[in-house]
Amino acid sequence: MPKHIVLFGAGRSATRFIQYIQDLAEEKNWILTLADRDADLLQRKAKNNKHTRSLVFDLSQESLLHELVTSADLIVSMLPAHLHISIAKVCLEVGRHMLTASYISKEMMELNDEAIKKDLLFLNEMGVDPGIDHLSAMELLDRLREQGAEITCFESFTGGLPAPGCSDDNPWNYFFSWNPRNVVLAGAGGAVKFRQEGKYKYIPYHKLFRRTEIVQLPKLGRFEGYPNRDSLKYRSAYGLEDIPTIFRGTFRRPGFCRAWDIFVKLGMTDDSYEIYNDGSLTHREFVNLFLAFHQSDSVELKLMHYLNIPQDSDIMEKLEWLELFSHEPIELQRATPAQILEHILMKKWTMQPEQRDMIVMFHKVGYKMPGDSEKFIHSYMSYEGKSANDTAMSDTVGLPLGVAAELILDGVITRRGVVLPVMKDVYEPMLAKLKTYGIVFEETAPLD
Amino acid sequence: MPKHIVLFGAGRSATRFIQYIQDLAEEKNWILTLADRDADLLQRKAKNNKHTRSLVFDLSQESLLHELVTSADLIVSMLPAHLHISIAKVCLEVGRHMLTASYISKEMMELNDEAIKKDLLFLNEMGVDPGIDHLSAMELLDRLREQGAEITCFESFTGGLPAPGCSDDNPWNYFFSWNPRNVVLAGAGGAVKFRQEGKYKYIPYHKLFRRTEIVQLPKLGRFEGYPNRDSLKYRSAYGLEDIPTIFRGTFRRPGFCRAWDIFVKLGMTDDSYEIYNDGSLTHREFVNLFLAFHQSDSVELKLMHYLNIPQDSDIMEKLEWLELFSHEPIELQRATPAQILEHILMKKWTMQPEQRDMIVMFHKVGYKMPGDSEKFIHSYMSYEGKSANDTAMSDTVGLPLGVAAELILDGVITRRGVVLPVMKDVYEPMLAKLKTYGIVFEETAPLD
Repeated sequence: MPKHIVLFGAGRSATRFIQYIQDLAEEKNWILTLADRDADLLQRKAKNNKHTRSLVFDLSQESLLHELVTSADLIVSMLPAHLHISIAKVCLEVGRHMLTASYISKEMMELNDEAIKKDLLFLNEMGVDPGIDHLSAMELLDRLREQGAEITCFESFTGGLPAPGCSDDNPWNYFFSWNPRNVVLAGAGGAVKFRQEGKYKYIPYHKLFRRTEIVQLPKLGRFEGYPNRDSLKYRSAYGLEDIPTIFRGTFRRPGFCRAWDIFVKLGMTDDSYEIYNDGSLTHREFVNLFLAFHQSDSVELKLMHYLNIPQDSDIMEKLEWLELFSHEPIELQRATPAQILEHILMKKWTMQPEQRDMIVMFHKVGYKMPGDSEKFIHSYMSYEGKSANDTAMSDTVGLPLGVAAELILDGVITRRGVVLPVMKDVYEPMLAKLKTYGIVFEETAPLD
Repeated sequence: MPKHIVLFGAGRSATRFIQYIQDLAEEKNWILTLADRDADLLQRKAKNNKHTRSLVFDLSQESLLHELVTSADLIVSMLPAHLHISIAKVCLEVGRHMLTASYISKEMMELNDEAIKKDLLFLNEMGVDPGIDHLSAMELLDRLREQGAEITCFESFTGGLPAPGCSDDNPWNYFFSWNPRNVVLAGAGGAVKFRQEGKYKYIPYHKLFRRTEIVQLPKLGRFEGYPNRDSLKYRSAYGLEDIPTIFRGTFRRPGFCRAWDIFVKLGMTDDSYEIYNDGSLTHREFVNLFLAFHQSDSVELKLMHYLNIPQDSDIMEKLEWLELFSHEPIELQRATPAQILEHILMKKWTMQPEQRDMIVMFHKVGYKMPGDSEKFIHSYMSYEGKSANDTAMSDTVGLPLGVAAELILDGVITRRGVVLPVMKDVYEPMLAKLKTYGIVFEETAPLD
């Protein structure tokens, strides 16, 4: 009797997961059903694989959803995160396991008791970040604690960046390897919270990109990390309730944040109101909306004066490279500043077919062995994509999902309830398999 | 047959309105009913006046509300703005006029057609700002337009400030003469929008207090104005749809905004999350929450370095005067940064019994007579309070409400529908009466 995996959502980031299941389907006796609203997409993704079925499906088709879940051994949802819950409730009703790469929502967490009672696993946060970060951090933290160490500091960064050699003419060293809207709105909305040397620290959004940390990694070079909003939230899951320093962040190449800060300072990342555009708005006029009126000064001069930018700085070079001061029209009629900024950035930051991206993940752990002083370990991983269609981003989301599906169906992962992948019986087999696919962490003492 | 006025909400800002009605009650044959939840407050405010009745009343008492409105000739609501609508609906049902000092809400505006049909007046925005600003601006604008002028620029500022001589030892030249929470949150939440020389301009909150304008007024000295969020919203009501420059703002004394900006930059005006306080939080530690960790630097040094404040600047003097760096405890256990900042400011910015406040209002109007070049008129008004219990703030809210009540009951104001006081038949009799109570505008050419 073959085992049946149903994947909801077959979009861009599902590529590697589908490949993973198809590669093992013959040997494992699996059937994969792709359920998506987009028929064209389904055809491209199914690739005439004999173990793969495609079903044009919309979440409003309730009886079909019921039928699909009932026919499955495992449900994987790569739909937008807020759509998981309606599928999870059907899984609970008919008794099926479920797997996602998304943050556990409050609604999902509330299903925990009933899932345990019904002997079901709802495994979440099983992508790259969240996902691989949990697995690798917990392996390192548990290993140190087993040796008797007390953990004094935990910092963790992930970045999706151009692979080496793929952004040589791009002074930002950056392009979009995932949802551009999320990049534009990164950090917006609320204050960042973390803990440093026993003190709580709070940073407002408009200071976020000026409070960065520089990290140097062997062979990979230098990165700068800006803080994520949620540094405190995994303290209890990681067993770090009283840790003096905890900080989670996002990597960019040095110089990015200082220049991105200009957009924040101007107010261009605001998504709360619409700009008036009668059709005459250009890149240049968009910048001018945020600058004080002056009879004769140019937009460039007003900007440099307003935000104290030296004329010959790399910031002006970066802004000019994006053609921010050009007379090119903005085609959006009704749009927020954030949507217009995304529109301008897309013109230069869309990945070209030959361009390749890279995922870099880094953990810095401080610890004390009994009677010894504080020491630090750096643990890091990098993974390069193959092309604009086969990105490190989609590989590192799809591979953990694929491996987890395999381990669930093979009965290796036997946890039940709504689960975050932070336990040894989950991360150990996961990391062992991921290693064979090139997701490998290395450890060093800090570089000077 | 006496006429019956019912006032909902007899709090601090109602003092002058109650006085106004009581002063005229005998002559005009009026009865005033004060309806409030607070029995003590009612007793203090009624002052055993023989024309005044007090009723302990809560908005949840629906049948009593019906009875009260039915018994009245005019309803005045000084309750918090969101509570007006439930009273307005009863007024509409039983056919009574209503008067408020609050901004017209969307829900209120929707009652317009039915109010006209039922021959009712719902007159709003009849306090100081909004209120006296509408009356005085429209009088000036209409007068210029009647002379054939085209209006090219409209700027308008209001400020509640210490009266001259009442803040000599206070380097901020500021104390709370109205709701402190509104002062702390002023401008927060969204971008500011205005128009300058034909260009739309947008300012994000974190830049608001750095984009100020200095204004000098005869005898009153210098002020600085920061922009309000809603500069564009009265364009059509004022007949200024295509005006190149329109800007509305709030007055402070020079130097205030630059120092207030420090709180904004640090993130202390954020009202969206709660600070963790185990009881050990002091003023000094509150500041430190927003500063990067440093092994040895003092909080003062870290702050000056972080926000580029010269050690000998007036900004540090202002912060020290507020005892921001003291080890005084913060008694609030669960509070947002904005609530903690308000708590600290209350210790120094609460009006002392002998202190007096002042309202300053200023309009700058640019205009062109046919064939002539652009000219400017400055129109301004100042009004001083008598004590901390008899403030300019409550007088300038209560007097327009009192005058409007008189003019409605006397049949002088005959408009119907949901009305903003921008028409000649409203502002002309209003301004004539207000003048006799010391609310007088003077006009000059701009000072150099």
